[in-house]
Amino acid sequence: MKNINDRIKEKPILGWVIFIASLVGVFALGLLASSITERRAESTLIGKVQTTIKPLEPRNEKWGENFPREFQSYYETADTTFRSKHGGGAMVDMLEEDPRLVVLWAGYGFSKDYNQGRGHAYAVDDIHNTLRTGGPMHEDEGPMPATCWTCKSPDVPRLMNELGVEEYYKGKWARHGEEVVNPIGCADCHDEKTMNLKITRPALVEAFERQGKDIQKATHQEMRSLVCAQCHVEYYFDKNLPGKEGTPYLTFPWDKGMSVEDMEAYFDEIEFSDWTHKLSRAPMIKTQHPDYELHQMGIHGQRGVSCADCHMPYKTEGGQKFTDHKIQSPLNNVANSCQVCHRESEGNLIQSVYERQDKIKETRDELEIQLVRAHVEAKKAWDLGATEAQMKAILKDIRHAQWRWDFSAASHGGSFHAPVELGRIVSTGLVKASDARLKLSKLLIELGLKGDVPYPDLSSKEKAQEFIGLPMEKLRKEKEEFKEKVLPKWKAAAEAREAGYDAK
Amino acid sequence: MKNINDRIKEKPILGWVIFIASLVGVFALGLLASSITERRAESTLIGKVQTTIKPLEPRNEKWGENFPREFQSYYETADTTFRSKHGGGAMVDMLEEDPRLVVLWAGYGFSKDYNQGRGHAYAVDDIHNTLRTGGPMHEDEGPMPATCWTCKSPDVPRLMNELGVEEYYKGKWARHGEEVVNPIGCADCHDEKTMNLKITRPALVEAFERQGKDIQKATHQEMRSLVCAQCHVEYYFDKNLPGKEGTPYLTFPWDKGMSVEDMEAYFDEIEFSDWTHKLSRAPMIKTQHPDYELHQMGIHGQRGVSCADCHMPYKTEGGQKFTDHKIQSPLNNVANSCQVCHRESEGNLIQSVYERQDKIKETRDELEIQLVRAHVEAKKAWDLGATEAQMKAILKDIRHAQWRWDFSAASHGGSFHAPVELGRIVSTGLVKASDARLKLSKLLIELGLKGDVPYPDLSSKEKAQEFIGLPMEKLRKEKEEFKEKVLPKWKAAAEAREAGYDAK
Repeated sequence: MKNINDRIKEKPILGWVIFIASLVGVFALGLLASSITERRAESTLIGKVQTTIKPLEPRNEKWGENFPREFQSYYETADTTFRSKHGGGAMVDMLEEDPRLVVLWAGYGFSKDYNQGRGHAYAVDDIHNTLRTGGPMHEDEGPMPATCWTCKSPDVPRLMNELGVEEYYKGKWARHGEEVVNPIGCADCHDEKTMNLKITRPALVEAFERQGKDIQKATHQEMRSLVCAQCHVEYYFDKNLPGKEGTPYLTFPWDKGMSVEDMEAYFDEIEFSDWTHKLSRAPMIKTQHPDYELHQMGIHGQRGVSCADCHMPYKTEGGQKFTDHKIQSPLNNVANSCQVCHRESEGNLIQSVYERQDKIKETRDELEIQLVRAHVEAKKAWDLGATEAQMKAILKDIRHAQWRWDFSAASHGGSFHAPVELGRIVSTGLVKASDARLKLSKLLIELGLKGDVPYPDLSSKEKAQEFIGLPMEKLRKEKEEFKEKVLPKWKAAAEAREAGYDAK
Repeated sequence: MKNINDRIKEKPILGWVIFIASLVGVFALGLLASSITERRAESTLIGKVQTTIKPLEPRNEKWGENFPREFQSYYETADTTFRSKHGGGAMVDMLEEDPRLVVLWAGYGFSKDYNQGRGHAYAVDDIHNTLRTGGPMHEDEGPMPATCWTCKSPDVPRLMNELGVEEYYKGKWARHGEEVVNPIGCADCHDEKTMNLKITRPALVEAFERQGKDIQKATHQEMRSLVCAQCHVEYYFDKNLPGKEGTPYLTFPWDKGMSVEDMEAYFDEIEFSDWTHKLSRAPMIKTQHPDYELHQMGIHGQRGVSCADCHMPYKTEGGQKFTDHKIQSPLNNVANSCQVCHRESEGNLIQSVYERQDKIKETRDELEIQLVRAHVEAKKAWDLGATEAQMKAILKDIRHAQWRWDFSAASHGGSFHAPVELGRIVSTGLVKASDARLKLSKLLIELGLKGDVPYPDLSSKEKAQEFIGLPMEKLRKEKEEFKEKVLPKWKAAAEAREAGYDAK
């Protein structure tokens, strides 16, 4: 067979063809290299800090000047169009969807108003608007303490720095109304110089310290969950901390562990209750949202998948890979979350999540019904003259059963994060509720009751709120007045303050 | 740079070196090819049918002559050394481990004797030895029907072929004692000509037919589960089938679906009960082992993983890949089962299985306690003169609660196969048990009871069996007499029969 040199000798034109083809090829390579370099340059330009961000800068827009992609995706948390089968981004009135909740929380703020959470961008608006915060006309009025702001805004680390942590927690919610205006954002999780992930809330750091752990030693992958764990956890306001008596100090009940039993034992030991139930008079614990705890107990957490891996997956735009800051349900972004690891169709994956949710919801609903019955039966017992001694064990059962129910109901995504654990929790709740009702059944007969205690008409939120005696008209009026007379002042004062901050 | 031809011209010896090196290389390749060919030959030899297997041949050893690897691995099911945290291969006395079971099954055979299952190789030995089959001295004696043999042996398809299916199901267990001698094996799942997987038990085919499905259209991968589903399912003996009245005809209760509620509705509709509970007099359903059903409801089943994929994974020996017929817990073979798909350490994988099992067991134990209480409280109500009308709803609750408990307890591996579904089942069982006990509590007071019904002493199997009034001494004696006088005759008769079979 002839080699290429022989062929060229025979047909010199062939040499020229090869030469020109090579030239074209090299030119094309050059174009490609140029394109890559250009993209790199763009990346560098975008990633580079251009304006200096002030320490503890609470305004997300200021950070956004240097990080437009992260900022723009963050503000997409304002999108409320997605709603999964069991809730999600949209503003759903949960009390309307399930009026039993009103009875379960009788005597507590959540019975007044409880909407399905919206995105982080609404954090401050929603706390202004909810009936739970009431209509304070002065800074020392209203039902909620200052501590309630803690998870709502990057103004909080700024304020804590200015006032000191303990001082920040003191007083009523209205006290910080002019100060807390920027919704959850950049400064909550990032260092303004290095952009490293950063824990800005003391409660998490303190909880680690009490367990003998140093949060500074957390890996970057752990931090991708821990920044979320600043808020998405079970917490309570402790008014009896040594040296801090009287201040509702935000505290995580993790000293004995993170399981539902560990935290219950913790609360029992310090005899803590969030409120006394209006019907049963049981000393209740309101579960907040033990998302981090449950995530750690599920298979994704156990295999080292972080919150950000699914709720803030990587994204590429204009040649730049960045973390999508549109924090949302992975069900609205299956391709970039689940499907990075799981080779299954989007439909199948979503179906698997729904199936877990359905199964947990089914038994949780049963527990809810048992709890409603237990509360109204306990009320009947009090009405018939039951003594504290007769009621003590019953109320403890109710407390423990509802703590378990709420643990499974309040945690966002718990039915997906740890469905087997949540199933266990609901089951143990059913046992406690059943214990309470068996004791009540005997006591009620002893107190002379004939027949059953009727189940209340809970066919609508309004009927349920009427049943527990909530003055809804008055509450709504107070809130309207607050929004009309107080809120504009807060906003104006904040604007002036922030303008001054820039001028500094 | 000089090319190789120029170099050889300078040093002719180099040409010889290259020539000899080539020769050596080609020789080595020849050796390799020979080795591969030899392995192939061995494979072909082993895979090839050498002796003709007779139709419906029940003796595993005969099949083993042609398939030594499959046969040898099958006989490893005799290995009882492995035991997982919650049981497994070894012969564990479950009534000793959990004496509550004795009370739950009062009036039914399982309260006499219930051991943790051993491998398939022991199927016939174990049914000879269990107290449940009693000590029949004649073929028309004993507590169990002939139908009980159905899942124990490849002699069953042979017998069904000889007698006809309906005739096979008639009579007492002792009737087939001389006929059924070979433990579960080859002919239960394979066609003797093609070695294709084959359904040999009519109940599964009939269940498919009633659902309008043709089992002939099942894929090979589906068959890798369906051959197991001939036995590892929920079933019952129907004595009221049209045209077959009186015959305990093996039937799967799948007509309404496979969920615990579907099958419960099926049993309720035909008013079926396996037995009447000795204490509560509730019409009970004994759940068998709904393994296939639960597997279908879990993530592995949903993603198309078959029983054989994990319980009989592929294995390579002497260059031949074959299906490991040592059917066993995948926990004893993690490397070839779980780790084929899951890139996790063996320790982590086993831990995840144990965690699921622990969580389900915890709440199932609670349900067990509630059920024991319900049975003894119901007995008390009868003792105090309760009427059928007063007890009807209570007994239905007990029936449904125990059906759910048993569904979660009787299924092998259910806590792993479908832990979320099993959690749901246990929860719904807790609700039913609690309903029963609430009604009982009121009824007992109405009937004049003061105080609580005492919980029996269930600290040992013996105490539990005494509590329900079982004549254990007598049962054991009967069994010994059977093993001494009847069993040897069965074995001798079978040997003679099989010798004749070969001579044909």
